[in-house]
Amino acid sequence: MDEQLELLVAERAIHRVLCTYSRGVDRFDLELVRSCYWPDGTDDHGSYIGGVDGFIEFVAPALQRFDRTNHFLGNILIDVDLPNGAARAETYAVAYHRFHDADGQEQDMVAGLRYVDRFERREGEWRIARRVCAFEWRRTDPVGQGSSFADTYTRGVRGSGDVVWPILETTPAGTGRG
Amino acid sequence: MDEQLELLVAERAIHRVLCTYSRGVDRFDLELVRSCYWPDGTDDHGSYIGGVDGFIEFVAPALQRFDRTNHFLGNILIDVDLPNGAARAETYAVAYHRFHDADGQEQDMVAGLRYVDRFERREGEWRIARRVCAFEWRRTDPVGQGSSFADTYTRGVRGSGDVVWPILETTPAGTGRG
Amino acid sequence: MDEQLELLVAERAIHRVLCTYSRGVDRFDLELVRSCYWPDGTDDHGSYIGGVDGFIEFVAPALQRFDRTNHFLGNILIDVDLPNGAARAETYAVAYHRFHDADGQEQDMVAGLRYVDRFERREGEWRIARRVCAFEWRRTDPVGQGSSFADTYTRGVRGSGDVVWPILETTPAGTGRG
Repeated sequence: MDEQLELLVAERAIHRVLCTYSRGVDRFDLELVRSCYWPDGTDDHGSYIGGVDGFIEFVAPALQRFDRTNHFLGNILIDVDLPNGAARAETYAVAYHRFHDADGQEQDMVAGLRYVDRFERREGEWRIARRVCAFEWRRTDPVGQGSSFADTYTRGVRGSGDVVWPILETTPAGTGRG
Repeated sequence: MDEQLELLVAERAIHRVLCTYSRGVDRFDLELVRSCYWPDGTDDHGSYIGGVDGFIEFVAPALQRFDRTNHFLGNILIDVDLPNGAARAETYAVAYHRFHDADGQEQDMVAGLRYVDRFERREGEWRIARRVCAFEWRRTDPVGQGSSFADTYTRGVRGSGDVVWPILETTPAGTGRG
Repeated sequence: MDEQLELLVAERAIHRVLCTYSRGVDRFDLELVRSCYWPDGTDDHGSYIGGVDGFIEFVAPALQRFDRTNHFLGNILIDVDLPNGAARAETYAVAYHRFHDADGQEQDMVAGLRYVDRFERREGEWRIARRVCAFEWRRTDPVGQGSSFADTYTRGVRGSGDVVWPILETTPAGTGRG
């Protein structure tokens, strides 16, 4: 059972990195994105292929072209090689990108892909050593009716204003957004 | 390793509540929805902000406006504070709502959001103390061709007729729906 | 805590089967699909209802009608009955199917469903004994602009050429696709 627990702990750590990547990209917290990779890690995004420093430089203006992004993760299948401190992770993703086109029309560009990752464990920590994005499909559709939110809705935002950061602060029970 | 196992057990409990919420909403089992919250829990859905009793009253007619809903969950990132019995959970969701509009046209309203939750552990049980829905995007599209199912297809239904309830009953091997 | 760990280990095994099914279908590795079921297992797909051998025969030409498929999994709620070696798993899925219609127009057929499974443990291994697909919704939409990828993009492919298979092979750090 000890090896089973070790596997569970390793997979949990890898799972957290995968979700942290989405949080970093969608909240535009680029240091959080960087923390998912080893300093010598690589990323093959198709539109960018190279090391992590270059990836962070690439991704900042790439993200700013969109009003918002939403990197939605599904299936995560992780094969950990405990003795060698390496793991393969295959993560299904649907990446939603909302933007205004040159004519001011709202559009959704949605891509289906898989993050195919080699993770490495160094000094007990798991991070991405090599990521390849395997693209499945993509489509772009204009946004029509029924896309707006009333003022009472909390919106996801980039940066420190998002509700994910303060949610653990104590608030009086029953006061809602308080 | 003991604390690692405690974390895994807490995260498993929280993960179950998150999925149970979707099951409750999509099968229209409102007591199952209620069981995900502490009695003094709050929900900020934008269209409703307040306590759980009010939320259940609000959600029943809101759901009935739709032919069916499908609250699809992706990334789940849970930060458990074991000593304090509290946790932050960020859960990506795409909520599919199918309905007929005033002209009888089938429509899909689809919303991308994150459930941002404060969970609390009380007497060993984890439930939602405070939920904020952080909305990312929404779109509504008419349903065209290729949307119908032949009679041989099992459909998801609201209430006790759904196949999820009896699936564990023993059926003779090889007899299919038996 | 021992029973908690046993539950975690059982759920991990079941989770792996669920993701392996998608990998098998989407990479067109039909023996991988078959390995998810017991030999006397059954599948109710609506378009096919019966045993696993027949399902594999059915699914091969069904998949070949599509240019590519992407079986994206969300919520997974597993109820393990340890003493009886059985489990219920409810898995939300959105299945993306891209194809060219008779007029050569690219189309996306997308279906929302739940895999409702009875898993059984035999000699320590968990596989599907009975699967019912509970269909929620379906829609088909023509693919317009913004759907193509430049040549530098890695694409998901069927068969042994997909990047998921070699990702764990050692590559020099920093060389990208190397």
